Amino acid sequence: MKLFYAPHTCALASHIVLEEACASYVAVRIDFGAEEQLKPDYLAINPKGRVPALVTDQGTLTETPAILAFVAQSFPAAGLAPLNDPFNFARIQSFNNYLCSTVHVAHAHRMRGYRWADDRIAIEAMQRKVPQSVGDGFALIERGMLDGPWVMGDAYTICDPYLFTLAQWLEADGVDISRFPRIADHRLRMSQRPAVAKAIAIETQPAT
Amino acid sequence: MKLFYAPHTCALASHIVLEEACASYVAVRIDFGAEEQLKPDYLAINPKGRVPALVTDQGTLTETPAILAFVAQSFPAAGLAPLNDPFNFARIQSFNNYLCSTVHVAHAHRMRGYRWADDRIAIEAMQRKVPQSVGDGFALIERGMLDGPWVMGDAYTICDPYLFTLAQWLEADGVDISRFPRIADHRLRMSQRPAVAKAIAIETQPAT
Repeated sequence: MKLFYAPHTCALASHIVLEEACASYVAVRIDFGAEEQLKPDYLAINPKGRVPALVTDQGTLTETPAILAFVAQSFPAAGLAPLNDPFNFARIQSFNNYLCSTVHVAHAHRMRGYRWADDRIAIEAMQRKVPQSVGDGFALIERGMLDGPWVMGDAYTICDPYLFTLAQWLEADGVDISRFPRIADHRLRMSQRPAVAKAIAIETQPAT
Repeated sequence: MKLFYAPHTCALASHIVLEEACASYVAVRIDFGAEEQLKPDYLAINPKGRVPALVTDQGTLTETPAILAFVAQSFPAAGLAPLNDPFNFARIQSFNNYLCSTVHVAHAHRMRGYRWADDRIAIEAMQRKVPQSVGDGFALIERGMLDGPWVMGDAYTICDPYLFTLAQWLEADGVDISRFPRIADHRLRMSQRPAVAKAIAIETQPAT
């Protein structure tokens, strides 16, 4: 498999999960600085012009929650999701869908406001609200969605790398993580996992 | 099961899928006009203050793609998703995740701009861009994500009610559906399914 990623994006979640699953894969960096994600070579892989994209023998997958569930189902021995329990599998999807549709979207209004408005003044107004909207999303997680020690309780699942990835952005989004002791504790514990350290090391090594 | 919905929201997708699965459920209307979704009784069910929420014997599920996958897995005889094929199951999740994180989000900037900015001028700027951002999302679907006759090809799946639900909003979002003949054809074919007609009839009957 090939994982197309860019550093400091949500692709880190897929990267960590591939490491946790001990999957055989190659990580391919897309240079956002050079707008490589919008060039024909990459658009042929992912017409959305975004990362992550996971190229498999069967075809290409995009969208983080879908990739995470695919890796969990493809590597059942890794125990990354309750695969034979529709309700608890749905709880995992629900958590990950909340991250992609609400929390990540709130965050995206800081750097990608041009997706939703053209005026500079409007884009600046969006940026001003990011600390509140991202903070509200994490407050809901802190209050009732993070069972502890992992998101789903005792079992480490595909929710954990995704939450960790988005929690990496809190400081830059102007949100004080000390408001969220459970999330801060989770982020610290995640950073100590070998799979996490390895994925981050690959993503942050100097481009070749 | 109890499905909490409001008319003209994305809850319609879950409603249709429950009908398609011949599930035993009760539909409970939440009155957005009276802001019932933000009152303590409903927040106790769904702290997000949104619809849909599906209350089951095992607990409550939120987020459309998670609910749709749960219904497909809980009623395998309905054949609403390829349950034993991780890649094609992931394709379905990928499609539905695109709808929730990109297409629905673009649409939400018309009526719910206050989520991402406080200034009236910024909110109006967001509204002006909705025809373009929603149109771009549907253009990508038209071009390469709708195999036909159904989203995933010959098999009707949980992608179809979700696409249909969002395609209901095109005219109000200022997007001319005649640009998208495949989506227009899909919408028409969906509207002729008994499960779709029944869910819409329940949702649009006068409140009691």
